[in-house]
Amino acid sequence: MVHEGRTTLIGLRRSFHRYPEPGWCEFRTTAGIVAELERIGVDEIAVGQEALASDARMAVPDGETIRPWLERARVAGVREDILERTKDGHTGVVAVIEQEPDTPEGSVEQLGEEYDRDESADGTDFVSEQDSERRPGPCVGLRVDMDALSLRESDEASHRPAAEGFRSEHDGYMHACGHDAHIAMGLGTLEAVKESDFTGTFKVFFQPAEEISGGGRAMARGGYLDDVEYLLAVHVGLDNPTGTVVAGMEKPLAMSHLTVTFEGASAHAGTAPNAGANAMQAVASAVQNAYAIPRHSDGMTRINFGRIEGGTASNVIAEEITLEGEIRGETTALMEYTRTELERVLYAAAEMHDCDVTPRVISESPSVDSDPALRDLVSEVARGVDGVDSVVPTDEFGASEDATYLMERVSENGGLASYVLVGTDSPTNHQTPTFDIDEDSLEIGVSVLSEAVLACSERYGDRT
Amino acid sequence: MVHEGRTTLIGLRRSFHRYPEPGWCEFRTTAGIVAELERIGVDEIAVGQEALASDARMAVPDGETIRPWLERARVAGVREDILERTKDGHTGVVAVIEQEPDTPEGSVEQLGEEYDRDESADGTDFVSEQDSERRPGPCVGLRVDMDALSLRESDEASHRPAAEGFRSEHDGYMHACGHDAHIAMGLGTLEAVKESDFTGTFKVFFQPAEEISGGGRAMARGGYLDDVEYLLAVHVGLDNPTGTVVAGMEKPLAMSHLTVTFEGASAHAGTAPNAGANAMQAVASAVQNAYAIPRHSDGMTRINFGRIEGGTASNVIAEEITLEGEIRGETTALMEYTRTELERVLYAAAEMHDCDVTPRVISESPSVDSDPALRDLVSEVARGVDGVDSVVPTDEFGASEDATYLMERVSENGGLASYVLVGTDSPTNHQTPTFDIDEDSLEIGVSVLSEAVLACSERYGDRT
Amino acid sequence: MVHEGRTTLIGLRRSFHRYPEPGWCEFRTTAGIVAELERIGVDEIAVGQEALASDARMAVPDGETIRPWLERARVAGVREDILERTKDGHTGVVAVIEQEPDTPEGSVEQLGEEYDRDESADGTDFVSEQDSERRPGPCVGLRVDMDALSLRESDEASHRPAAEGFRSEHDGYMHACGHDAHIAMGLGTLEAVKESDFTGTFKVFFQPAEEISGGGRAMARGGYLDDVEYLLAVHVGLDNPTGTVVAGMEKPLAMSHLTVTFEGASAHAGTAPNAGANAMQAVASAVQNAYAIPRHSDGMTRINFGRIEGGTASNVIAEEITLEGEIRGETTALMEYTRTELERVLYAAAEMHDCDVTPRVISESPSVDSDPALRDLVSEVARGVDGVDSVVPTDEFGASEDATYLMERVSENGGLASYVLVGTDSPTNHQTPTFDIDEDSLEIGVSVLSEAVLACSERYGDRT
Amino acid sequence: MVHEGRTTLIGLRRSFHRYPEPGWCEFRTTAGIVAELERIGVDEIAVGQEALASDARMAVPDGETIRPWLERARVAGVREDILERTKDGHTGVVAVIEQEPDTPEGSVEQLGEEYDRDESADGTDFVSEQDSERRPGPCVGLRVDMDALSLRESDEASHRPAAEGFRSEHDGYMHACGHDAHIAMGLGTLEAVKESDFTGTFKVFFQPAEEISGGGRAMARGGYLDDVEYLLAVHVGLDNPTGTVVAGMEKPLAMSHLTVTFEGASAHAGTAPNAGANAMQAVASAVQNAYAIPRHSDGMTRINFGRIEGGTASNVIAEEITLEGEIRGETTALMEYTRTELERVLYAAAEMHDCDVTPRVISESPSVDSDPALRDLVSEVARGVDGVDSVVPTDEFGASEDATYLMERVSENGGLASYVLVGTDSPTNHQTPTFDIDEDSLEIGVSVLSEAVLACSERYGDRT
Repeated sequence: MVHEGRTTLIGLRRSFHRYPEPGWCEFRTTAGIVAELERIGVDEIAVGQEALASDARMAVPDGETIRPWLERARVAGVREDILERTKDGHTGVVAVIEQEPDTPEGSVEQLGEEYDRDESADGTDFVSEQDSERRPGPCVGLRVDMDALSLRESDEASHRPAAEGFRSEHDGYMHACGHDAHIAMGLGTLEAVKESDFTGTFKVFFQPAEEISGGGRAMARGGYLDDVEYLLAVHVGLDNPTGTVVAGMEKPLAMSHLTVTFEGASAHAGTAPNAGANAMQAVASAVQNAYAIPRHSDGMTRINFGRIEGGTASNVIAEEITLEGEIRGETTALMEYTRTELERVLYAAAEMHDCDVTPRVISESPSVDSDPALRDLVSEVARGVDGVDSVVPTDEFGASEDATYLMERVSENGGLASYVLVGTDSPTNHQTPTFDIDEDSLEIGVSVLSEAVLACSERYGDRT
Repeated sequence: MVHEGRTTLIGLRRSFHRYPEPGWCEFRTTAGIVAELERIGVDEIAVGQEALASDARMAVPDGETIRPWLERARVAGVREDILERTKDGHTGVVAVIEQEPDTPEGSVEQLGEEYDRDESADGTDFVSEQDSERRPGPCVGLRVDMDALSLRESDEASHRPAAEGFRSEHDGYMHACGHDAHIAMGLGTLEAVKESDFTGTFKVFFQPAEEISGGGRAMARGGYLDDVEYLLAVHVGLDNPTGTVVAGMEKPLAMSHLTVTFEGASAHAGTAPNAGANAMQAVASAVQNAYAIPRHSDGMTRINFGRIEGGTASNVIAEEITLEGEIRGETTALMEYTRTELERVLYAAAEMHDCDVTPRVISESPSVDSDPALRDLVSEVARGVDGVDSVVPTDEFGASEDATYLMERVSENGGLASYVLVGTDSPTNHQTPTFDIDEDSLEIGVSVLSEAVLACSERYGDRT
Repeated sequence: MVHEGRTTLIGLRRSFHRYPEPGWCEFRTTAGIVAELERIGVDEIAVGQEALASDARMAVPDGETIRPWLERARVAGVREDILERTKDGHTGVVAVIEQEPDTPEGSVEQLGEEYDRDESADGTDFVSEQDSERRPGPCVGLRVDMDALSLRESDEASHRPAAEGFRSEHDGYMHACGHDAHIAMGLGTLEAVKESDFTGTFKVFFQPAEEISGGGRAMARGGYLDDVEYLLAVHVGLDNPTGTVVAGMEKPLAMSHLTVTFEGASAHAGTAPNAGANAMQAVASAVQNAYAIPRHSDGMTRINFGRIEGGTASNVIAEEITLEGEIRGETTALMEYTRTELERVLYAAAEMHDCDVTPRVISESPSVDSDPALRDLVSEVARGVDGVDSVVPTDEFGASEDATYLMERVSENGGLASYVLVGTDSPTNHQTPTFDIDEDSLEIGVSVLSEAVLACSERYGDRT
Repeated sequence: MVHEGRTTLIGLRRSFHRYPEPGWCEFRTTAGIVAELERIGVDEIAVGQEALASDARMAVPDGETIRPWLERARVAGVREDILERTKDGHTGVVAVIEQEPDTPEGSVEQLGEEYDRDESADGTDFVSEQDSERRPGPCVGLRVDMDALSLRESDEASHRPAAEGFRSEHDGYMHACGHDAHIAMGLGTLEAVKESDFTGTFKVFFQPAEEISGGGRAMARGGYLDDVEYLLAVHVGLDNPTGTVVAGMEKPLAMSHLTVTFEGASAHAGTAPNAGANAMQAVASAVQNAYAIPRHSDGMTRINFGRIEGGTASNVIAEEITLEGEIRGETTALMEYTRTELERVLYAAAEMHDCDVTPRVISESPSVDSDPALRDLVSEVARGVDGVDSVVPTDEFGASEDATYLMERVSENGGLASYVLVGTDSPTNHQTPTFDIDEDSLEIGVSVLSEAVLACSERYGDRT
């Protein structure tokens, strides 16, 4: 199986790189994906509201933040029907292809037997639980994300996007985490799979708002994921050089991003120090005790308050102060442990100073590990891909990712999911103004992913 | 009016000085007072349980602490009937004399008119509210305290009690606050009043357990105070030299002495840091926030935790920790404000760390000011006393005193109370191992107090 | 001595009320004062930089805040020479009149003898310390303030300035503390003194930026105060009705307004929680311990942090956070005690979390009591003023005032100062949108002040 | 190779079980070991001071605690020469046997080749670094510990030691962690090795004071360990049943047990709240911030304060308070990170409240993992031992152990060390009053250990 398109992949990546849009504002990006999908030709394209569970979205910016991006997209010529379907922060696309089997028979062993699965893997026999008789092949999904960061891209000559003319046109925003590459890989994989002898259903989920953990849950619940039996998610880089592939990442941190508002009562600090309810003291007590939430014997937890603002004047007892923070855990349970403890601290700190407190979840994501069986399948195919010189079975994430919402749902439905890392040389770290990818990694990514999709189909057929 | 007895006063003071006993353990002291009262001859002697409201006692030590003092008193020859009446921490004496009028007529103006009372004084006309027709004279009270401190008295030659052979025989205990002088003054005043032409009832309240704020409430509620119309309390020294008299002290601090026990749950700090409920963290949060209770615009408040103990081992989450502390206020209301705030802090700190907390009051005393009218009467008589060279109308206490329980009750009943200070030169501060009084101040004190008692009687008669 | 000008006083007050300007931006107000002084005719007018010690100013806003007010004044027609002299936040005026004696002799006793001065008064013999031979009369000063508050004035019909057309034209700013009345009184007193047989020098200090404690120090050090022997300051209202005069206020709170910036180092809270230096934890520790600074036995202290802001994002260790707060004390020493303790807390809290901290004083004012002798003089003259029905010798301030800088300097030079309160009925409290004065109090104020100035002169003459 | 002695092993274990002694007080235990060694016959016996680096001991109790144990041992008939060598807390024994080779030749491959060592293992070629020419065989060490816990042993009939008459005779102390079994295994292994064809030097280290982490460092530096090339340490149970052997434990927690004393200055809390230096506030701030020391991205850390005591009275600013606590880390570096952070917190908290602070290390132990090569050797031999039904290559410790001092030193010298776990059924957990071992595990332990020692010798010979 071959796919050509190095030029196309690079061109695509560069075109998306040039117009970065933040989470829930990816109007032009959505339109660009749709245009490319129409060029490729797919069986179904779900755009925006069609692709998402609207009320499961998180961290949606307010209307004033979204509007200029919509206007900018309109000015850039985005079709009205797409603007209509994505308006009010409903970006994202799901593309579907379905292919009939060319060869009705096979003799390869079943996935579950060939690969020496880790004991911790459950779902190894999920296939038998489904009515596989009626299907010609499996339903395989690929999830890529598509939003950018609020970061001003470098304009130095040594920064290739600047030198070669595809630097961000949206000042203050930048594809500094490689999601431009992910989109290109998603499209490239779709085209490769379409051109292959893949039998079954293949869906690519172009998920918005990953950077703010806002889109994963909405896409996981949007309906299109419900029959997916194998799910791959992909990320480039993360300190791995071009040629390295990690077959399945593990231990992404479960995360919850939250705000906490303390409300007391103001009073004159000089003449009535005893009259108010001091939100400043409540916050201080909350912060001190929150960081002191006990470590957990089951593994790593995190807590942080990174922003604070409130009060009115030096001589007034502070009436309202808002903290912005996050909690994380090596497992979802550990994150929930931290949440429970934190809430007790917050309510007690408020009560201690006669204040009220309101914690609000802005966004979150669970911790889900890659399935060992699917990880092994990816390992095997990756070893055969040109340009891949190191296949690592698994590595720790050390960060959070809301692809876990999709992985969790597939797993709950009895399917398998793996989060694949495609190495890419980069001059500087992710999330820096001079981040760039090695575009050679695009084709490697497409090859690994499309081969893996194809392998799912082949193994699936073996069952019959 | 003359009284002799300098020798007796000094002898009495020294005999009490030699056998100091702590609060609720003043068995020998009680017996010594009773013996002297019997020598003087009084109309009624109420001892221990007869003089106190037993269940209003506070800070009573446990049986094991009291027993050795009882045994020591028994060995020293204290009569069994007195040991019986004082057992289980019921020390103290009330002595009563009643005297008929010698001269049925008078022409002096009534107290309320003669003295230019301060506007803040209420109760100026309390006399008219009582059925004074049926009385020949007023009921006047004098309160003195009688307990000692746990302090080892100096044995240096420069310390007069050591040099002259009346140093404490009870090692580790010492009359280092002058209560030995108070007892002697109480007895001396009783004798002087008895020998004078005082008309009415005069009661001397020998109150136990002042140092631990334990006896005032019990004596205030013991019954003998109920008909007292004028109450004097007395203290020596407090940085005032011999010859100075302060007619009425004000602003004693309302005080509550308490213990606070936090109870959590232990767990192994290494293998299960998240499993327990950490009383150590709860205590730390409580202490930090307690000291930060807002200042009050109405006046001074105080808070302190002076003792702490708890936990089991370095590697165990602390299960139980007890704090010992106190709160004070310039007024009783300010002390209560602090209590309310403190309790909120304590319960919230416990809740914050999943612990329970139990605050317990050990002892307390309200804040009561001397009545301006009675203060003025004391000023007037003091100016005529030999050896008095400075009469200060009023001064601030800066400390707490449970005589306020008696003063408060007299005031509630419509009477007047004043807390009189009799200056005394002392080589070092109260509550130091070398504290001593100038014994010349004993006679000054007896003169001021007995003249004041007599003046109450004279003014009272003027009404008729 | 008579002065007419009720109409003028009211008209003046209303014209200043209509154009309120905040501290260091009183360009139009300065010009209005100068115009009136020119109308009255005085010996010297010092404007802006001439009247102030420029580098002693505090809390001066940045250029961007000042500029629009300067432009607004220019548009309103303020003369360029005044704009030049006041530019860059140098508002304020000092007016001087000097009058020769009409009658070279007198027989009244000297001030220091006639008035029974309180023991705490120092400077009672200041007159003899000066070379009074060469002077025909004393140098008397009057200090009034002139800035407004950032508060939107009520536009309800029941609010007289709205009903009668002199409501603030500067939206969001309002003379809600009576400084408009103070200016009018200052001008009225000047005119009245000029028309009287006052002998000596009389200076009126129109001080900017009182509300932010920014102007007092600069005016105290501007030179014009150096030879002032008697200083009066004035305030209307403060809960006293029309007809009441307080001759000399005492115990203004010493105050220091400050900002505190903690600087740490950011790091990713998820992947490198140990790598940064957490300004959020440093702040929490600082706040908790600052409020817990021990109460002081010498009197009242205050501490407050009323504003906080800092940090960047929920998942980043906070790098920089700034607190805005204040400390106060019943005496300057108590305020300094609190500052010393606070600084120790701040530096230790920073050190504890590996951060730096920078406390900055924004503005401050000492605590200075009115001099009893001058207070008594004011009492005496006030009792003879029409409309005055209650003269209170002294009352507690309960707030802070930077007139204390001027009072302190006069006192240091051997002079006497008193802070006079002129009662005024007001529908609502100071610093509320419906605050208003009873304009009848304007004339009362002018009479009390001008009579007091005249009395200073008369007593002064008696010495010779 | 066979060894008999089931009866002896059980008898030995029971005799030691009956006389439990706490750390640094194992006088009778030392004597019992010496007696048994003399029975067995060994080449060298180092007792107490001969076996230890005296000044490297930690957590040595004071003389008053040690003396009664010494007396008790004397009364029980312990020889004076042993009491002399162990006095002042110098318990412990090292026994040495040296055996010449029987068979000078061999053909087995070298250890380093035969076992497929883990990449993380260093020291695989340590043998070549030593002058192996001059040695007939390796120097192998076995470390067992010998102290008991302060715990009252159950006297219920269901508790076998009670039922069968070998319950603790030292009330309040108990071998509740299996060190009695370790001693017996140490002696049994020595005898078994002596009777085998082992060639080389074999040393058994009977280490005192393990429970308080006090003896490991002193024994590691006592000299006898310096030439040890293979070191085994052993523990029974830890939740593993009889028949299970863990060949090499990993990740013991590095630990430091410490006390922290804050010293301030006392003052009267009512009259001089500002005068002292409040150790209570310093402690509260220290505790709050210590628990809030940031989690570390490299792994687990722990901190705990489990005991607190200090202050004098409720109305006195606390002058001195002592905390008892511990820090731990998944690695020694993580423990040191925590120590560095903790010290900064402690000194800053003291400074914040004008106090001094003195942290003191009571005892500690590093984290050292078992060497993979030696672990593999143990695995291999364990699989061949009767009664062993499950050999686990490695497991996590989850607790601390000062055998790591010995392991660390051997590793630093180029040797290999492994910490072997011998499963034993036990009715209840370690450190409970009804803990007991399955005595069948004694022989299993001896077999595994002696076979491993022998294997070291055999592999060693293969090199030549």
